Amino acid sequence: MTAAESPRRRPGRPSRTDSPDGPSTRERILTAARTEFAERGYDKASIRGIAKRAEVDPALVHHYFGPKEQVFESALEDAAQPALSIPDVMLSGPLDGAGERLTRFMFGVWENAFTREPLLAVIRSAMNNETAAAIFRRMVVRNVLKRVAPQLPGPNAELRAELAVAQLVGTAMLRYIIKVEPLASADVEELIRRLAPVVQHHLTDPPA
Amino acid sequence: MTAAESPRRRPGRPSRTDSPDGPSTRERILTAARTEFAERGYDKASIRGIAKRAEVDPALVHHYFGPKEQVFESALEDAAQPALSIPDVMLSGPLDGAGERLTRFMFGVWENAFTREPLLAVIRSAMNNETAAAIFRRMVVRNVLKRVAPQLPGPNAELRAELAVAQLVGTAMLRYIIKVEPLASADVEELIRRLAPVVQHHLTDPPA
Repeated sequence: MTAAESPRRRPGRPSRTDSPDGPSTRERILTAARTEFAERGYDKASIRGIAKRAEVDPALVHHYFGPKEQVFESALEDAAQPALSIPDVMLSGPLDGAGERLTRFMFGVWENAFTREPLLAVIRSAMNNETAAAIFRRMVVRNVLKRVAPQLPGPNAELRAELAVAQLVGTAMLRYIIKVEPLASADVEELIRRLAPVVQHHLTDPPA
Repeated sequence: MTAAESPRRRPGRPSRTDSPDGPSTRERILTAARTEFAERGYDKASIRGIAKRAEVDPALVHHYFGPKEQVFESALEDAAQPALSIPDVMLSGPLDGAGERLTRFMFGVWENAFTREPLLAVIRSAMNNETAAAIFRRMVVRNVLKRVAPQLPGPNAELRAELAVAQLVGTAMLRYIIKVEPLASADVEELIRRLAPVVQHHLTDPPA
C-alpha cells in the first residue's frame, strides 16, 4: 500500500487486524499523529510533521482528516475507541453489577499495551494543551456521559459518574504512568476487588 | 535583589511572602524552572533556558541547584511543599476522620491557584518524562507513603493509601486540567461530602 492509494472522503473505522500489506495508510497516519502530538505537544505538532512520520505527502493527511484540530480529533477517537463502548458495557446488565463491569472493562483496556498506549498518548496531549483538552472533553461528554448518566438513579448523576471515572483514571495514572509501587505491580484482580465497590458507590448510592 | 546576590550553599526554604524587593533569586529560578519543564518537557529543558527565563547567569542556576535533575527535584520539592504536610494532616486527629481531613486538605491546596499551578506543572512534567516520573515517585514514596502507611490498620496499607490518593488525584485531573463539567464547577463542600467517605474507606476498611 502506498501514499498514492486513493483516499476515501469518509473513511470507515480502520480494521483492527493488519492486512498482509501492513497497516493501511489511514492507520499509519493516525499512529504518526499520536506520536507527533505526544512528543511535540498539540501546539507544536504539524500536519507536515505527521506526514513525515507516516512517510506520506502532507496533502494526503489533510485530504483524509482535514486541519490539525480534526486530525487530533480523529486520533483521539481512534485511541478512545474502547472507552466509547463504556456505555454499552455498563448498561449490559443489572445496575448493581455496573461498578464491577466498568472497573473490569477499564483494566481490560489498560492491561493491554496495544489499547493502553494510544490512550495514554492522547491523555498526555490533553493534559498539556487547552485545545486538546477541549476536544477530549467534548468527546467524553458527548459519547459517554450523556449516554450513561440518564440511566443512573438519584441526583447529580453526571457528577457521580465523573467521580467514578476519577477513581479509575487516577488509578491508571499512578499505576501506568507514574508507576508508583506497590500499585504498579499489584494484582489486577485485587485492584478490581478493591475498586469495584467504590465505583458502584458513586454510580448508585446518592448520599449528600 | 540582583543576580549578583551571594548564593547560599544549602539554601533554606524560600519565604512564602514576597519581600518588598520581590521574590528572591532562588524563588525566581524555581519559578522559571517549573515553566521551562512544563513548556519544553524534561528532556528539552535546559539550565541555559531556565537561566534565561529567570534573567540570571546559567552558572548561578547550577551553583544554587546543581545539574538539571537536581533543579527538577528542587522545583518539585518546592511545588509539592503542601503535599509534604499530608502525613501531619492525616495523623493530626482520630483515624476515623482522616479521610475527611485528607480530602479537605487537598481541596485547600488545589482551590488556591497559587499552590495549584506549580503542582500541576510538575505533574505534567512527570507524566511526560520517565526521569521526571522517577524523581516524583521517589519523593512521594519517601515523604508521604512511608510515613502514612504504617499508621493505617489492616493489610496492604500502602496500596490502600495509593488508591485513596488515586481518587483525589483523578478528581483533580478532571476538575482542574481537563475541566469536565459538571465536576469543574461543582461546589467544593459537595465534593468533600462525596469523596471523604470513599477516601476513608480506602484508608481504614481492609476488605478483599
